[in-house]
Amino acid sequence: MYSFKNDYCEGAHPNILQALIDTNFIQETGYGKDQYSLKAVQLIKRHIGREDVDVHFIPGGTQTNLIAISSFLRPHEAVISADSGHINVHETGAIEGTGHKVLTMNTNDGKLTPKQIQNILNIHTDEHMVKPKLVYISNSTELGTIYNKEELVALRAICKENDLLFYMDGARLGSALCSNDNDLTLNDLPDLFDAFYIGGTKNGALIGEALVICNDSLKKDFRYYIKQKGALLAKGRLLGIQFIELFKDNLFFELAEHANRMAAKIQKGLKEVNVAFLTESPTNQIFPILTNEQIEALKRNYDFELWKKVDESHTAIRFVTSWATKEEAVDQLIKDVKNLI
Amino acid sequence: MYSFKNDYCEGAHPNILQALIDTNFIQETGYGKDQYSLKAVQLIKRHIGREDVDVHFIPGGTQTNLIAISSFLRPHEAVISADSGHINVHETGAIEGTGHKVLTMNTNDGKLTPKQIQNILNIHTDEHMVKPKLVYISNSTELGTIYNKEELVALRAICKENDLLFYMDGARLGSALCSNDNDLTLNDLPDLFDAFYIGGTKNGALIGEALVICNDSLKKDFRYYIKQKGALLAKGRLLGIQFIELFKDNLFFELAEHANRMAAKIQKGLKEVNVAFLTESPTNQIFPILTNEQIEALKRNYDFELWKKVDESHTAIRFVTSWATKEEAVDQLIKDVKNLI
Amino acid sequence: MYSFKNDYCEGAHPNILQALIDTNFIQETGYGKDQYSLKAVQLIKRHIGREDVDVHFIPGGTQTNLIAISSFLRPHEAVISADSGHINVHETGAIEGTGHKVLTMNTNDGKLTPKQIQNILNIHTDEHMVKPKLVYISNSTELGTIYNKEELVALRAICKENDLLFYMDGARLGSALCSNDNDLTLNDLPDLFDAFYIGGTKNGALIGEALVICNDSLKKDFRYYIKQKGALLAKGRLLGIQFIELFKDNLFFELAEHANRMAAKIQKGLKEVNVAFLTESPTNQIFPILTNEQIEALKRNYDFELWKKVDESHTAIRFVTSWATKEEAVDQLIKDVKNLI
Amino acid sequence: MYSFKNDYCEGAHPNILQALIDTNFIQETGYGKDQYSLKAVQLIKRHIGREDVDVHFIPGGTQTNLIAISSFLRPHEAVISADSGHINVHETGAIEGTGHKVLTMNTNDGKLTPKQIQNILNIHTDEHMVKPKLVYISNSTELGTIYNKEELVALRAICKENDLLFYMDGARLGSALCSNDNDLTLNDLPDLFDAFYIGGTKNGALIGEALVICNDSLKKDFRYYIKQKGALLAKGRLLGIQFIELFKDNLFFELAEHANRMAAKIQKGLKEVNVAFLTESPTNQIFPILTNEQIEALKRNYDFELWKKVDESHTAIRFVTSWATKEEAVDQLIKDVKNLI
Repeated sequence: MYSFKNDYCEGAHPNILQALIDTNFIQETGYGKDQYSLKAVQLIKRHIGREDVDVHFIPGGTQTNLIAISSFLRPHEAVISADSGHINVHETGAIEGTGHKVLTMNTNDGKLTPKQIQNILNIHTDEHMVKPKLVYISNSTELGTIYNKEELVALRAICKENDLLFYMDGARLGSALCSNDNDLTLNDLPDLFDAFYIGGTKNGALIGEALVICNDSLKKDFRYYIKQKGALLAKGRLLGIQFIELFKDNLFFELAEHANRMAAKIQKGLKEVNVAFLTESPTNQIFPILTNEQIEALKRNYDFELWKKVDESHTAIRFVTSWATKEEAVDQLIKDVKNLI
Repeated sequence: MYSFKNDYCEGAHPNILQALIDTNFIQETGYGKDQYSLKAVQLIKRHIGREDVDVHFIPGGTQTNLIAISSFLRPHEAVISADSGHINVHETGAIEGTGHKVLTMNTNDGKLTPKQIQNILNIHTDEHMVKPKLVYISNSTELGTIYNKEELVALRAICKENDLLFYMDGARLGSALCSNDNDLTLNDLPDLFDAFYIGGTKNGALIGEALVICNDSLKKDFRYYIKQKGALLAKGRLLGIQFIELFKDNLFFELAEHANRMAAKIQKGLKEVNVAFLTESPTNQIFPILTNEQIEALKRNYDFELWKKVDESHTAIRFVTSWATKEEAVDQLIKDVKNLI
Repeated sequence: MYSFKNDYCEGAHPNILQALIDTNFIQETGYGKDQYSLKAVQLIKRHIGREDVDVHFIPGGTQTNLIAISSFLRPHEAVISADSGHINVHETGAIEGTGHKVLTMNTNDGKLTPKQIQNILNIHTDEHMVKPKLVYISNSTELGTIYNKEELVALRAICKENDLLFYMDGARLGSALCSNDNDLTLNDLPDLFDAFYIGGTKNGALIGEALVICNDSLKKDFRYYIKQKGALLAKGRLLGIQFIELFKDNLFFELAEHANRMAAKIQKGLKEVNVAFLTESPTNQIFPILTNEQIEALKRNYDFELWKKVDESHTAIRFVTSWATKEEAVDQLIKDVKNLI
Repeated sequence: MYSFKNDYCEGAHPNILQALIDTNFIQETGYGKDQYSLKAVQLIKRHIGREDVDVHFIPGGTQTNLIAISSFLRPHEAVISADSGHINVHETGAIEGTGHKVLTMNTNDGKLTPKQIQNILNIHTDEHMVKPKLVYISNSTELGTIYNKEELVALRAICKENDLLFYMDGARLGSALCSNDNDLTLNDLPDLFDAFYIGGTKNGALIGEALVICNDSLKKDFRYYIKQKGALLAKGRLLGIQFIELFKDNLFFELAEHANRMAAKIQKGLKEVNVAFLTESPTNQIFPILTNEQIEALKRNYDFELWKKVDESHTAIRFVTSWATKEEAVDQLIKDVKNLI
């Protein structure tokens, strides 16, 4: 049994575990003021090419989204999101739990457009309705798709015109940035977003996301929010040490590239036998459509998500690859699918 | 420079790091449904001697408190706490952040009494005031003191009579249970408390607390709350693996015993030169009172907390020992203090 | 200029004002424990035909919805509503403000169906998503339509099967119950709903809604919630006195019947000249579709809402009638519209 | 039986009821945009002598406090209050219900001092604790006392130095301003406070408080908050009409003066027979200390609050007078107390 169920099936990249061991008995200050966290912040700033951003490490993605969004908004302000957005579907109402409505638009590919944002703005015009204030996107999206730079510039423009904050959930930012279709770099992000996060958990870390706040007006007192929501780890070193490993060289990118390459290989292999896909994904999540019988057969040896019923006899499934995905498992999967067809 | 600032200066016990390495490439389900978390739950139940409790692993203490308390209470219900309680002072209003008032009583030793609870009940009698519903204690307390069984039985009784939930913050439960003055065991706890947590972070883990829910009526849907507050780790294995190490044998207790022994040694050494203490602490936090000059001198070689101004020339400081505290550092500290006196 | 903009353009029915004067100098207890509120509760229970319900008076509709729903739900539980539901659109995120997600389904007529509820239940199956727990409907709906008894019985059934609470926003319940198409009575409601409210503000009162809680498990401590949200009026008599007037005889129903009759007259008049309507409304809100030129002309003498653009040249507008609508104004309106066509 | 239990035993001043009747059938816009509310705002601005403040009408005091405070603060910010403050004791945790901690200081007379504020600031210094941000006072206080101008200027100064907002609960502001000991005017208030409210409910209105926002940075989007908390009345005219009556001439002050005069008369009468008082109150709440037997005897003919046990045989009770208190009832009360002594 091999799992393509998600990108957090294994532990951490061995370099990270080694670094934990190497630093284990060095005494450090708590709560993210340790030397490792400080150094990791510097490394990330260098990768981004900007000194004037704030970087905070937070254990998980849902937590990062809820802390950031609830601290950025006043009580009557709402978030705009694709209806497939992680905050709208898979965070158990965490954003609403902090008091804010999530306004959604239906999309096929998980990507918001300026027109959809404009539609929401058009109907939210007075104090009887919430005030849209923050646009949430994920990149890569929950459907494996990515935004190109032109699309983000256009979204940025409508946000700016309408005094909306622009925020990116980067749980799978590594995979997005390392995708063949990508034309973005970390350097572009501070000009595009008021804040975004760089996901560690799904790209080789045990836990940890790096929230980058670019808009000065959102920086003040941010550690209070992290603490109030219970996310200021006593042993904050655990996060700093991991992000040093990911960013001291290019491990973060190498791991994402491996994941993408594995997904692309599966995709290519399956297309050779004319398997259709739910979306065109250039990242580490792919959504082949198979017959229910084929899926049953695959289940015997593989773990994966059933994504969406396509018709009575076909279902889209999701394969996710990661930094830890073994190429021989990918080869075997391709072979096994081909045999089923 | 040696730090007695807290019990989270170092990383994790080496057994834990080794276990992370040993299991690293085994593929597992996410979100706490992995084999390690399941096994750790079983081990904790065995240590407690009860199968009918629910055990959940949560990354940190503030988070555990806020998730538990906010899920246990209805909106108008309040918590009773000593005014020194961690939830009242050092959680940045996390409990109020979930909507609940913390009603406090002043104590000298950090310990609540039935009489104090009764006083609060006496004045909260109608719907113009919050309804006290949950008694929060920490054991050991923020002042290093512990509750004995008789005290807890009495608190339990007043809670039961008044339909109050009884909850224990066990961030330093290991130290409390391994104290020389202690007459409690893990086995006693389910009969005393509706819920409590066993702290890992301050007793050898990298992160992680084990919340034990004893009262059936509080168990339902609890994983929803963990998720909504962002505390359901994708790689939940990180918590399970650590608690297996702590509880597969008696590592949890051995580590706490070491911490207590180190604190007792310092306390004994300092008493030999007539240093006074703010509280009589049988646990790993001790509060010697020194002159401001002595403190300045100590600061050159040691890191510790200034706790409380006692008079113009004296201040209570806090030394905290841990599983990782080196005996030679303790010996040197005693020697250095003696030299100052 | 005559206003058909809403059903709260005027003050209160004269009987209500007279009763305020008659009782003005009688000293009474505060916070809804006055003799008037107690009597009004008894009158409402008698009209409903049930002694075992709790009745609470709350100043406004948004407030009633937010207090009821937030007190009925635990933090992870969500509301199911038509996307046109008042709580979803026109309450400035009041429900989310209390921490709960509103899950919506698109409807043409503002009415939820069991099938739509089932669809939402089908996709909310684990702790990564909110847990649907309460079905919210409004009757009459925001589109003037009403539910018949058979429809409500079917909704009740699916709620019961799935442990969902069933709640009705009755801001315009008077108009619904007095509609010609209606087959419901107040007596039916406790068997159908866990809670519902009887709207006073839009049917002759200055302010005030009567929340009726039928499900025993929702009754406990309810006055705490009213107080905590700031809705327990010091001079609660203001609400009690009004509801006595509405329910001591049948004023509540007479007022709603007048409003419905006025709306029906307009509808009939306009249909005679082939004006189309957005929905078939048997209540006091009607939605004629006119050309933009006709609308501009009408605006000179009438106040009303623009509801929805139908095509480039046509828009649906909303006329609302009330207990205070003058028949001569209605006749003039019909004449004026006919002249435009 | 005559009630001195509170200042909301009766309905409204007859002028107010007459105004409701006179305006009843004039059609008006909803939600506080009616001509009456607009006019009342202008009248209040004129009385204050400032055009650059925002005035909002809100049904009740708890509601005004919770809306103002929750909209002024960011999530980690806390309120400083006397422990006797209404928000701390008698609002069922409404402030905590919006997520904010109330930090309290013990007082004898219900009045905060700069020193007490400084003490709280001294211990709240980092992100592990809430950040004090708003000072709440009530004037008159819950103990009948008032602040003089010098005291308020000193409080203002410490607030300004420490970037704290200064907010006054004016539920009984009329009584405070009309007290013989008072040296404040409405004109002074915008220079002293960031926001305050003028209480109507306890001074002749049926319901209604006028919130005055002086600090520009707190004004934006305020109607959203009112609506989100359910306090934007459809028939907002109800509030506007009342405040016109209170402020078109000097009715507001005349009513408060009457209440104060009645309280002073009782106080003088009782002092003649050497009754002691819990506080020196120059306003409409007075706190005589009587023997338990005297109190039992008084209860037969009067309604009042038991305030505080003074010793085994004595209790402080509270008499509250109002605009509607009859002088003959006051005379009788004095006579009856004298007879008991």
